[in-house]
Amino acid sequence: MHPFVFALDLLGTFAFALSGATLGVRKHFDLFGVLVISFAAAVSGGIARDLMLGATPPVAVASWPYLAVSCMAGLIGFYNGPTVERLRNPVQLFDAIGLGLFAVTGASKALAWGLEPVGAVLLGMFTGIGGGIARDIIANRIPVVFQADLYAVAALAGAVVVVGGRSLGLPPGPLLVGGAALVIFLRLMALRRGWQLPVARPRD
Amino acid sequence: MHPFVFALDLLGTFAFALSGATLGVRKHFDLFGVLVISFAAAVSGGIARDLMLGATPPVAVASWPYLAVSCMAGLIGFYNGPTVERLRNPVQLFDAIGLGLFAVTGASKALAWGLEPVGAVLLGMFTGIGGGIARDIIANRIPVVFQADLYAVAALAGAVVVVGGRSLGLPPGPLLVGGAALVIFLRLMALRRGWQLPVARPRD
Amino acid sequence: MHPFVFALDLLGTFAFALSGATLGVRKHFDLFGVLVISFAAAVSGGIARDLMLGATPPVAVASWPYLAVSCMAGLIGFYNGPTVERLRNPVQLFDAIGLGLFAVTGASKALAWGLEPVGAVLLGMFTGIGGGIARDIIANRIPVVFQADLYAVAALAGAVVVVGGRSLGLPPGPLLVGGAALVIFLRLMALRRGWQLPVARPRD
Repeated sequence: MHPFVFALDLLGTFAFALSGATLGVRKHFDLFGVLVISFAAAVSGGIARDLMLGATPPVAVASWPYLAVSCMAGLIGFYNGPTVERLRNPVQLFDAIGLGLFAVTGASKALAWGLEPVGAVLLGMFTGIGGGIARDIIANRIPVVFQADLYAVAALAGAVVVVGGRSLGLPPGPLLVGGAALVIFLRLMALRRGWQLPVARPRD
Repeated sequence: MHPFVFALDLLGTFAFALSGATLGVRKHFDLFGVLVISFAAAVSGGIARDLMLGATPPVAVASWPYLAVSCMAGLIGFYNGPTVERLRNPVQLFDAIGLGLFAVTGASKALAWGLEPVGAVLLGMFTGIGGGIARDIIANRIPVVFQADLYAVAALAGAVVVVGGRSLGLPPGPLLVGGAALVIFLRLMALRRGWQLPVARPRD
Repeated sequence: MHPFVFALDLLGTFAFALSGATLGVRKHFDLFGVLVISFAAAVSGGIARDLMLGATPPVAVASWPYLAVSCMAGLIGFYNGPTVERLRNPVQLFDAIGLGLFAVTGASKALAWGLEPVGAVLLGMFTGIGGGIARDIIANRIPVVFQADLYAVAALAGAVVVVGGRSLGLPPGPLLVGGAALVIFLRLMALRRGWQLPVARPRD
């Protein structure tokens, strides 16, 4: 993996781990439970991606920096809960950052492993949303991805930027940064301005 | 994959995706959330099967028809919710069809990858029930497979027909159709006539 | 796999399957639902471990003894529910035994597949906690691992004993037995004596 992609991947790991820690503290998990949900939120998407690529063992298991970064975020979330909570919607903010970074690094890795564009976009999106799904299922709530405005679709947009841009021959660095920024922008607009997709009205 | 198995697999994908879409609409998911739960319901069983076979990347990720069929079903479920709901128990009906088709195509693929009969039956059953489990966990309810009458056992019966018939040297086409029909028949009898297995009485 | 490790693995399978069966009976699952949750509780951790190692098909799917042992435990749990319940906290007791055995056999297998120590400890821990997570998510409750005292940390300790001891050149047999015993001891102390880790106080 390119060092720049690796750095973005670790940053996404930190952000998702912090979102997991914040949720775990709210749910009264103990110290180690908080570390485990932090790690699950941080690496589930990447592990699913690596399993689907046949890239075993998954990098998050085989390589210690992911564990170290996620434990660091978990400890910060555990011991500085009030400080983190003072931020506005910290779970949502860190979640948005992790979503953006993982969507672009996931799509990038899928391309590097030879997937076709459609598959690479799907895996990029799934790398982004997988951690949040695992985190929310663990906390026994409907994953935010299925009800939040512009969530999976934001991750999709970020993955499309990377995959589309690469197939046009554009350089990877700006695509990764631009794709991640687009995801974060879309999520923040959805959260602050209420941008949303239509919701069907069931009969019941 | 044989074209006939592929066609059955896409039909099962459509049926499960529609069951996912109907549930997503009931749970007030937004448009993209409905598409994602449709896709999850449609492909989770097959992805789990492919991962266990070591067949990476899973066909549902690497091959666009699964995504296209599942999105089509998701859009139909989203925009024609009332029409779909007017059918009697539409989630259960489409679910039964998907269950039957996936149980036989899953068992068939596992045999083709060289698994022993017991493993092929297990993977066939799991291909059938995996999508519904993912769909129901996403919607935060106990998966229907664990409480519904003749659910996993119906999928098991369909997989046994395929694996048993193949080991007797019977031709695959009729086995696939017959096995899927048996699953659907068992599920409908359970739903309409109350066929069921015993339930234990816990003390508490 | 060494016959002794295999025997411990089957014993862990039996214990976790019984914990799954007991929970399924409490939740009013039907006979086959009880068998499925027993199997899920028994093999999910090992399947996840094998997928991450690239050891496909997973041994619990490819090899019939795991299925047979888990069905046997499921039938005992289904037909002898009152007897099992008369034991004190039977889900927790069998869960502790399965946790200990799987943590050490999982770490041992990960080492045999060439993982580095940190990865082997992680996979050992995950082999231990995976089945209980699957079981509890199926039953729609927050997995006990995230809230129970000394749960994942006990599995971690058992895996550390095996991985640390092996890297010091100690013989595997005593390490497996000692590591599993440590896990079970820690869990029982947590359950009976209230040993626990700190819990953060969220602001909300």
